[in-house]
Amino acid sequence: MVNPFFKNHGPFKILDILNILNIKVSASYENQNVTDIKDLLTSKSGEITFFHSQKYKNLAKDTKASFCITTQNLKNELNKNCKPLIVNNVLVSTSLITAKFYPNSIDDVFDDTVCEISNTKFKDTVKFGKNVLIGENVSIGNNCSIGHNTIIEKNVSIGNNCSIGTNNIIRNSFIKNGVKILDNCVIGKHGFGFFPKNNENLRYPHVGIVLIEDNCEIGCGSTIDRGSMSNTIIGKNTYLDNQIHVAHNVKIGNNTIIAGQVGIAGSSIIGNNVRIGGQAGISGHLKIGNNVEIAGGSGVIKSIADNSKVMGYPAKNIREFLKENK
Amino acid sequence: MVNPFFKNHGPFKILDILNILNIKVSASYENQNVTDIKDLLTSKSGEITFFHSQKYKNLAKDTKASFCITTQNLKNELNKNCKPLIVNNVLVSTSLITAKFYPNSIDDVFDDTVCEISNTKFKDTVKFGKNVLIGENVSIGNNCSIGHNTIIEKNVSIGNNCSIGTNNIIRNSFIKNGVKILDNCVIGKHGFGFFPKNNENLRYPHVGIVLIEDNCEIGCGSTIDRGSMSNTIIGKNTYLDNQIHVAHNVKIGNNTIIAGQVGIAGSSIIGNNVRIGGQAGISGHLKIGNNVEIAGGSGVIKSIADNSKVMGYPAKNIREFLKENK
Amino acid sequence: MVNPFFKNHGPFKILDILNILNIKVSASYENQNVTDIKDLLTSKSGEITFFHSQKYKNLAKDTKASFCITTQNLKNELNKNCKPLIVNNVLVSTSLITAKFYPNSIDDVFDDTVCEISNTKFKDTVKFGKNVLIGENVSIGNNCSIGHNTIIEKNVSIGNNCSIGTNNIIRNSFIKNGVKILDNCVIGKHGFGFFPKNNENLRYPHVGIVLIEDNCEIGCGSTIDRGSMSNTIIGKNTYLDNQIHVAHNVKIGNNTIIAGQVGIAGSSIIGNNVRIGGQAGISGHLKIGNNVEIAGGSGVIKSIADNSKVMGYPAKNIREFLKENK
Repeated sequence: MVNPFFKNHGPFKILDILNILNIKVSASYENQNVTDIKDLLTSKSGEITFFHSQKYKNLAKDTKASFCITTQNLKNELNKNCKPLIVNNVLVSTSLITAKFYPNSIDDVFDDTVCEISNTKFKDTVKFGKNVLIGENVSIGNNCSIGHNTIIEKNVSIGNNCSIGTNNIIRNSFIKNGVKILDNCVIGKHGFGFFPKNNENLRYPHVGIVLIEDNCEIGCGSTIDRGSMSNTIIGKNTYLDNQIHVAHNVKIGNNTIIAGQVGIAGSSIIGNNVRIGGQAGISGHLKIGNNVEIAGGSGVIKSIADNSKVMGYPAKNIREFLKENK
Repeated sequence: MVNPFFKNHGPFKILDILNILNIKVSASYENQNVTDIKDLLTSKSGEITFFHSQKYKNLAKDTKASFCITTQNLKNELNKNCKPLIVNNVLVSTSLITAKFYPNSIDDVFDDTVCEISNTKFKDTVKFGKNVLIGENVSIGNNCSIGHNTIIEKNVSIGNNCSIGTNNIIRNSFIKNGVKILDNCVIGKHGFGFFPKNNENLRYPHVGIVLIEDNCEIGCGSTIDRGSMSNTIIGKNTYLDNQIHVAHNVKIGNNTIIAGQVGIAGSSIIGNNVRIGGQAGISGHLKIGNNVEIAGGSGVIKSIADNSKVMGYPAKNIREFLKENK
Repeated sequence: MVNPFFKNHGPFKILDILNILNIKVSASYENQNVTDIKDLLTSKSGEITFFHSQKYKNLAKDTKASFCITTQNLKNELNKNCKPLIVNNVLVSTSLITAKFYPNSIDDVFDDTVCEISNTKFKDTVKFGKNVLIGENVSIGNNCSIGHNTIIEKNVSIGNNCSIGTNNIIRNSFIKNGVKILDNCVIGKHGFGFFPKNNENLRYPHVGIVLIEDNCEIGCGSTIDRGSMSNTIIGKNTYLDNQIHVAHNVKIGNNTIIAGQVGIAGSSIIGNNVRIGGQAGISGHLKIGNNVEIAGGSGVIKSIADNSKVMGYPAKNIREFLKENK
């Protein structure tokens, strides 16, 4: 369920895709349809995937995809039922093809489908403030409230017993039951992902959503970006304080507590029952285990094993850090 | 004056309170009324207080309260006119009883009592922008302005000559004269205080307010949380830059200057004439003296004496830090 | 082009200016007009400038200004055609005179000149959301969109193909073509600049603007302050992630990428093709060269040469830092 919200504009003919990738068509390609683009794990027959790093070679071996954007060096790792499409830069090429399937996942201009909540079916079922706007494809459960000036843009599902505060902007998000979002948050916008290019960077698509599980609380002024090819997830009963930034593809576990002004860079995974002190920063693509404690102000640049307590920049064992810094 | 704004739903009978605390009633309890819950220092006869740490034993010895939520270990430190109520977790129990007296201090759903300022008595005395909303129990002095989309929710007192910018949300706050609040601030929401519990954390009440003294300036995108059992205070002529987070119960002195993106964790006390550089962080429950200078980026994890200059993480004497880091 | 937006209330007679500065008038002053106040480099004959540090002695030698606010110690460095006005505190005196020429550059109360965009000439040329407000002296190019609740206050020029999101507040800014501003930003407010004074700080004027060049992107919840005596500049195709703070007078080059929660203190200059990781902080008045990489979480307190890679607090060569912190 990577993209329940973005409309798939496919299928496309493989010859059209090869054309976009500047791959010369040889006799080995029949002109079959390609129905979707997904990651190595979830893609199926008839779909296209991508493979850009040795890290994923086990997934590559087992992929069910019919086509895979990859490099000369990696192609031999691929499942032999999957036809490699050889390119120079896998991520740029993947971005181009994803944009073809999901053209609406690139740019986040404001949602002009919204209308006043009092003109929607929610006028009798939701408690709402002044100037609340609701976009297309929105569902809201029982016993919810939405504060003044908040905009629930398109593609948002809100469960039961949720309290959404004032001045929030939410889109492309799946919010479960009992969730409390305070004020001034922006949730579900595309992440800070693009390919640097002089004069005009090339933005890549963000097909993922933000998924907020039951009983979470999100503090004032926080930003949670939606994922690029996977979802950004906040686990059950996880509490975020004010002014926190959660980048795209981050996955946070259950019962985790994160203090003010913390930042979590893209694609990092945080476990259950984790405690993160104020202003700590976590680099991208890390794995923080369960029951980890990260002291306030720490800068985490390596993955952390379960049950560890760390502090410092770079973060290390907290006892060591405190002994060295008496 | 801890809670001028929250309605006290008491008095309650002591037997009802014992019942909530799961304390077996013995002959030693007459069924008298309990009128309020306060801290050790300010509570009076007929009221209930709480005592959870040896740190406060001097206050416990002198308290005027009639009842005190405390532990087996601490009860002998208590004034002998104050009857101990023995519990396992003082703060959780205090939270339950506070919630009984002040049920509105727990959840901060948006204020649905607000109405357009042009329909209030302030329409002729305040200069205001578009879409300004005013809640119940609000007072505003002379010569004030309030920018577009700002919401002065319930329980706010604003003095004379104040300039409140655009897109602010303010509640449960006492703002004195000559104060300038820029844009996108959230002031007076409950703090990040709760008892962690799997599946659903237990939030504790926030009965305190935010008190902003004369001539302060609060920068754009800042958040100042109200106190739990005491107030959050910003002293006279103290200036906060943009994107600052001040947690619950923090008390900042006069003439202090705090640069952008600083975070101050709960219950810390900052002196007068303090300078705090950008992105510095101050842990909770610390005391920062007068005339202290904290360099930008520092992480302060210990209290700091008057007139000190510190830098680093953990923050230490600035000369030492710079010598070690040439 | 320091101040295209602020109305110059001059010319003023030099005798009036001397009076404000408490300088005794001697026979050496004829009562001529002074037309403007500018920095040493850009001021011309008939204008007044200021000179407060040996750092600028080369500029002082060549200035074309007719008068210069300076000190006894510095006056001999001044071009002999420029008459020194000797004061104790150059910056306070400069502030007083700037305030006389540009009285509207000090306080940023909300803009009460705004009206609904549907009542302006932009109603047919701009795609806009609900509750969009436009101030005086605003221009907007072709093919632009402005999201809900956004306020384009006075003195803003927006080029072609710009996408301005929701809940933004923009004033005194020059935004070129293809710029994308996401949500909840505050751009063009006065910086955190003032002279500390007990009881009531003395704010200094901010005559500069914010200049955002072609194809930039500004992330959610960011704040960019306008300059005091020069402009705050974001170079072409520079991307800022969420929750970034750019202080007054900062100048950022082209093709630079800045991750979330970074803060850049006043008057620092950042080169082209620079990469700054999340939560890094850069002190004021520094020069960061071209092609520099600053790791996330770094605290930069010294200028950095071109092509360097740094990490740490204080930031140093990244290899050294990582070797010392294995």
